[in-house]
Amino acid sequence: MSNANRQMILRSRPRGMVTPGDLQLADAPLPPLGDGQALARVKYLSIDPTMRVWMAIDSYLPAVRIGEVMRAFGFAEVVESRHKEFKKGDKVVGLTGMQDYAVMDSADKRGSFQKVPPVPFLSDTAFLGVLGINGVTAYFGMLEIGKPQKGETLVVSAAAGATGSIAGQIGKIHGCRVVGIAGGPEKCQWLTAGLGFDAAIDYKQSDWKDKFVAATPQGVDLNFENVGGDIMHTILERMNVHGRVVLCGLISGYTKADPALASFGMVLVKRLRVEGFIIIDYMDRYREAATQLGKWKMFGKMKDRETIVDGLEKAADAINMLFTGGNIGKLILKV
Amino acid sequence: MSNANRQMILRSRPRGMVTPGDLQLADAPLPPLGDGQALARVKYLSIDPTMRVWMAIDSYLPAVRIGEVMRAFGFAEVVESRHKEFKKGDKVVGLTGMQDYAVMDSADKRGSFQKVPPVPFLSDTAFLGVLGINGVTAYFGMLEIGKPQKGETLVVSAAAGATGSIAGQIGKIHGCRVVGIAGGPEKCQWLTAGLGFDAAIDYKQSDWKDKFVAATPQGVDLNFENVGGDIMHTILERMNVHGRVVLCGLISGYTKADPALASFGMVLVKRLRVEGFIIIDYMDRYREAATQLGKWKMFGKMKDRETIVDGLEKAADAINMLFTGGNIGKLILKV
Repeated sequence: MSNANRQMILRSRPRGMVTPGDLQLADAPLPPLGDGQALARVKYLSIDPTMRVWMAIDSYLPAVRIGEVMRAFGFAEVVESRHKEFKKGDKVVGLTGMQDYAVMDSADKRGSFQKVPPVPFLSDTAFLGVLGINGVTAYFGMLEIGKPQKGETLVVSAAAGATGSIAGQIGKIHGCRVVGIAGGPEKCQWLTAGLGFDAAIDYKQSDWKDKFVAATPQGVDLNFENVGGDIMHTILERMNVHGRVVLCGLISGYTKADPALASFGMVLVKRLRVEGFIIIDYMDRYREAATQLGKWKMFGKMKDRETIVDGLEKAADAINMLFTGGNIGKLILKV
Repeated sequence: MSNANRQMILRSRPRGMVTPGDLQLADAPLPPLGDGQALARVKYLSIDPTMRVWMAIDSYLPAVRIGEVMRAFGFAEVVESRHKEFKKGDKVVGLTGMQDYAVMDSADKRGSFQKVPPVPFLSDTAFLGVLGINGVTAYFGMLEIGKPQKGETLVVSAAAGATGSIAGQIGKIHGCRVVGIAGGPEKCQWLTAGLGFDAAIDYKQSDWKDKFVAATPQGVDLNFENVGGDIMHTILERMNVHGRVVLCGLISGYTKADPALASFGMVLVKRLRVEGFIIIDYMDRYREAATQLGKWKMFGKMKDRETIVDGLEKAADAINMLFTGGNIGKLILKV
């Protein structure tokens, strides 16, 4: 064990792709280990799209500060310990950062490390992927938010990625027709022949939207969305009424020159629930609402105001008034 | 009663605002009343933003066909009846269309008419507004989708409109802090002094975003959204984690030259539920997911694949690989 710790330092916030100047290696001395601390040798780092967001902007976590070790989820092995939970030789996962050695501290609740159970048939790296952040993301995203039902059509974008490939397989386990969207024939081949997806659409082919429509004859009930932009819009156009979207990522937007994410970015990082609403779904309960509203109005708890335009011939003007802000309250055309 | 029925006919699909050529008056003869039919004199028509959508594109209802009477919700009085449910003098609401007389047919389930109860203190027009489509929309949108909780901050856009003004009052009844966004001092004055909103923000003032932030010191928990675009984005930026958006309208987009609505338009017309998801909300249940994923993997129900980049110094290249599609499955950096 060397006394030097190589660290990948965030030197500047990327605009577009990450440049060699944004992330630079530096050597730091290993600090003496205090009481309640353990030192772990980092062996593998999980590389995820969200890191590009961490480098650029505050989101669901604060941006990594300039001059700090780049944040990363990693797999490490304890090499020295004065920590009551970890002993030498333990394998752990957690927010190690991009460096050779991570210090684990009993007082550190944030980014806490978890011991990895010794499972003979699993490689170390599996704890970063299928049993790591990606697997767990796909698991809870699908089962707690998406709630796939037997016979539904699930569409996964970035389907050959670490999270998408697991989300799609969870859909298969739950009896969905699963369609993946990915870039290139090798990925699509893996999805269908390797993972058992019902169809895979290569978005790099010019006719992919037609193929996508053909692959979703019953429309789309559930979208596990990792990409955003044109791909997401194409899926939304194909969705059935009352469909659900698990918005898990927007990778198409992460390397734009302006890293400020648009409205769907807010929905993602704040984990908002946006639900479209049209009254036609509730017309059979019209009387229930009108009765309550009438009571509120009678007891002065509900006030209204009307703008009345006189004459059927003024229909176009009346409709336009809505868009110029001419009316206050209810706009009515007297016939 | 004249034998002629003035009808407002859709002649062309508007691009931008509605022009006089898009909607034209025509006289049609009144057809003889058949068995099971009733004739109603239309007295008032509800004018709503959604009509602009009906004129232009298929949405949650098919577009009005060129040459047909423009679709409209109206208040009418029965003048002649061979219909078993309605008698002369009954007042009804329903999809009358933009015309002097509407025929109600027993066989017509779609757009069915409802008799209006005689309530002394209510004007006829109230059945188009506060007790009509707008009131009922605000009622179910707020209570079935938004579910306002005491002490939460509710923001309503187009708050001085027929639906928004009622949605905000329902928020007050349920104990929310209610902030309305509207255009111009007269509307804002009505919201606070007239309806008891806690604050009203005039989006036509250049510093409205600062005022909006000041008016929402606890952030925003619930957004009853009628506008979309920049106004919605400003609200989303102010929302608290796990906030909810009732997407009820996108009036800022209805008169654009290209009436094809963007992604939020799909969410609206298909009544989709879009939910942002970040795994940090489920970290305390990590082991539960990893255990199930491990079982699936052991029994061959879950497959994975890895792309491993060797060397901490290649961190930037590894991150960029995600955005060029270079990896299949899980991308890992070996330290």
